[in-house]
Amino acid sequence: MSATTATAEIGLIGLGTMGGNLALNIAENGFSIAVFNRTTDKTDQFMAKAGPLAEKLVPTKTLEDFIGAIKSPRAIILMVPAGEAVDAQIEALRPLLDPQDLIIDAGNANYHDTNRRDEEAAAKGPRFMGIGVSGGEEGARFGPSIMAGGPADAWTQVGHILEAISAKHEGTPCAAHLGAAGAGHLVKTVHNGIEYADMQMIAEVYGVMRDGLGMTSAEIGSVFETWNGGILQSYLIEISGKVANTADPDTGKPMLDIILDTAGQKGTGRWTAIEGLMLGTPASAIEAAVAARNMSARIDERKEGEAVFGAAPVALDKAAIATSVLESALVAGKIVCYAQGFGLILEAAKQYGWAMPLPEIAKIWRNGCIIRSAMLNDMASALDEDPARNLMLAPFFADKLKETHGALRQVVALGALNGLAVPALSSALSYFDIMRTGRSTANMLQGQRDFFGAHGFERTDKDGKGYHGPWAMG
Amino acid sequence: MSATTATAEIGLIGLGTMGGNLALNIAENGFSIAVFNRTTDKTDQFMAKAGPLAEKLVPTKTLEDFIGAIKSPRAIILMVPAGEAVDAQIEALRPLLDPQDLIIDAGNANYHDTNRRDEEAAAKGPRFMGIGVSGGEEGARFGPSIMAGGPADAWTQVGHILEAISAKHEGTPCAAHLGAAGAGHLVKTVHNGIEYADMQMIAEVYGVMRDGLGMTSAEIGSVFETWNGGILQSYLIEISGKVANTADPDTGKPMLDIILDTAGQKGTGRWTAIEGLMLGTPASAIEAAVAARNMSARIDERKEGEAVFGAAPVALDKAAIATSVLESALVAGKIVCYAQGFGLILEAAKQYGWAMPLPEIAKIWRNGCIIRSAMLNDMASALDEDPARNLMLAPFFADKLKETHGALRQVVALGALNGLAVPALSSALSYFDIMRTGRSTANMLQGQRDFFGAHGFERTDKDGKGYHGPWAMG
Repeated sequence: MSATTATAEIGLIGLGTMGGNLALNIAENGFSIAVFNRTTDKTDQFMAKAGPLAEKLVPTKTLEDFIGAIKSPRAIILMVPAGEAVDAQIEALRPLLDPQDLIIDAGNANYHDTNRRDEEAAAKGPRFMGIGVSGGEEGARFGPSIMAGGPADAWTQVGHILEAISAKHEGTPCAAHLGAAGAGHLVKTVHNGIEYADMQMIAEVYGVMRDGLGMTSAEIGSVFETWNGGILQSYLIEISGKVANTADPDTGKPMLDIILDTAGQKGTGRWTAIEGLMLGTPASAIEAAVAARNMSARIDERKEGEAVFGAAPVALDKAAIATSVLESALVAGKIVCYAQGFGLILEAAKQYGWAMPLPEIAKIWRNGCIIRSAMLNDMASALDEDPARNLMLAPFFADKLKETHGALRQVVALGALNGLAVPALSSALSYFDIMRTGRSTANMLQGQRDFFGAHGFERTDKDGKGYHGPWAMG
Repeated sequence: MSATTATAEIGLIGLGTMGGNLALNIAENGFSIAVFNRTTDKTDQFMAKAGPLAEKLVPTKTLEDFIGAIKSPRAIILMVPAGEAVDAQIEALRPLLDPQDLIIDAGNANYHDTNRRDEEAAAKGPRFMGIGVSGGEEGARFGPSIMAGGPADAWTQVGHILEAISAKHEGTPCAAHLGAAGAGHLVKTVHNGIEYADMQMIAEVYGVMRDGLGMTSAEIGSVFETWNGGILQSYLIEISGKVANTADPDTGKPMLDIILDTAGQKGTGRWTAIEGLMLGTPASAIEAAVAARNMSARIDERKEGEAVFGAAPVALDKAAIATSVLESALVAGKIVCYAQGFGLILEAAKQYGWAMPLPEIAKIWRNGCIIRSAMLNDMASALDEDPARNLMLAPFFADKLKETHGALRQVVALGALNGLAVPALSSALSYFDIMRTGRSTANMLQGQRDFFGAHGFERTDKDGKGYHGPWAMG
């Protein structure tokens, strides 16, 4: 097929698994799309497997042909590895594009990079948009959640395509424009941070069942299946059940007993924790999840620890805790973790002056993405009521927390007493307990800080700052 | 006094409280020192209060006079606010100095900035060194702990002065050269991170005593005093006792009951947490301490939380937990927090190729700095045995942890069940429990990640990476 006439409604560069699937998704939704890959063999392989969708695909072998194949003003999705490859691709495209063309970075960019690229685009053109795409390979192919940031006119140009290819929640597209510059990638980062915490909390209750209650992988799988029919209904609970119920074809043993317990971490969970720290907003459940992954990677050190301290825990009686208590603890932990995530987004919106629609974020997370869950629908409603309120104070979730924080207490205490590590659930409980306490213990910190560094403090009985105690130094 | 002849052995710019005290300390140790402050009134005020030390001080009113007053090769300490002011000062000095002169940044720099300035110095001169100075105003005046990073010849030039003015531990100076470039500021950052965690854990047991056991500030002060005679002997426990025992002159009430519970956080504790995340090394107790400060600052939100969920906790019977159990819990928490801090330094040393002497770090923290404590002497010995080993696995500390982790469990469980937030102690316990467990729960994370993203996993029964489960997608 010749690429000399501009027939494609959009273009895509980078035919890895995610990029290829996104291109097929776009084609399947009826949009003609030009595709390009640096290694042209990959383009051939991609086309060979495209089947009837090939008629909507315009394969190209040079960047010039690729650009020539797209109707003006062009929209070009980049699905190349985050980081320098994105900058290199933009630099390569810039001299070939018109100022009104649009480059869309659909990778897992650090939103600070997206902010920078947004500024560079404003200065040098062409236009630029950063979109977060969640849902893994499946999502890319059949409907991801799409979190877009950039100029409003960019969304006007391509929003209909992104909505068309996105997942739907009861007919509503899980794609939205969330603010300027890096707003979309920030939201995707927080999505992934929440994902880390959600996964970690599930792993923690899995650990209580496996090591505390001595349950088999299949028994645990059944519990997750049951939970997936209730308030915890979510993709992550669903797949946890499937993972637990899967046998290893090689050995016949449960897959979970074969998988090594050393978890990788890509950048985005870590970025969320770093953003929380930079913005001064607590994201402690997410931090705990990232830290737990880093600890899991130190497997030799852990084995040495077990040799020194002996194995923990002692197996518990199955009556020690009901699985329904674990379910409730997970509900409480999950609410806290989302409260922290939305709190972080709120703070970023303030800091960058982005008008970010928080309820929209909950809405586009309801389907397509990894953290999709029934509870996100209730979160969307709660944020509709008051987007600036801490989610745990919204009446619906406050009621849920009232019902479940006792269970969270039981699980954390059981874990603490029996050597079952529940770091994310513990962090969630500490957050709940500090954030529901008018009088915390930070007065001691302030006393110490004033004592050794004359940092000054505020008083409970008077306005003003910079009071000092009558400490005798030395 | 004329500044036209070069008589001073060293110079100092920035006569704020820390800078002024450091200059007086240098003068008192017999070194002649030229001083300069951008606002020259401050220089006059400083000299007016210098008393007999004035004869070792050379006050100057212009940068040219200041530089002219220092013997060549010059050494100039900067004690200006961290950040742009340091760069501006270096830029102002550069054209006036010789390449073999030495600029020493003694502020709380981010060590990444120090790395950058080190590179700039290598390219453009003059030489550059970054030193962390801990001990607050008192320390600066009478003997701080000094953590130096930079070229070895810089230490050769000024090490004797820094050792002379530093605190001493049984005659040994608490000052050392810890590696190239930003090594000193990195160590100072981690020092401050540990300080955050140490303070937070003290505040947490204070909270158990105040809110759980209903103890008065004076009763709590006595407990800290007692602890300061034991294994927890440290500056922070000492001052916590003093703070608790101090009455407010205005109201006669305990000072702690007057101080508002909203803690500030300067950059360094946060930086430590960020570094832990960047380096992929768990610093969860430090992260929890930073997060707790961020939560404390949200005082209105906390009050709203209390209105929604009711006040916690219910007061406990005084027999619920003995203060000796709290003491042991603090011992366990403290060991973990230092293990994390030293682990972070070890990882940074690896990443930057710095030959950092870990035992030296423990040694120079034994006096002068805010975290000085008896236990640091034992840490120095443990790191002397094996600097690359996790501190919690060193026999001395492993024994201490065996004695005390049960107490930590009790405190975390008590806190969880009764709404007494103990986030840093909980994080420390989770770290201990993961790092002493050969088989963690991260296999579930890996199963989930492979299910939704085909990330691959390792197996327990075979070598190799990139195995996948037989998941049926969709």
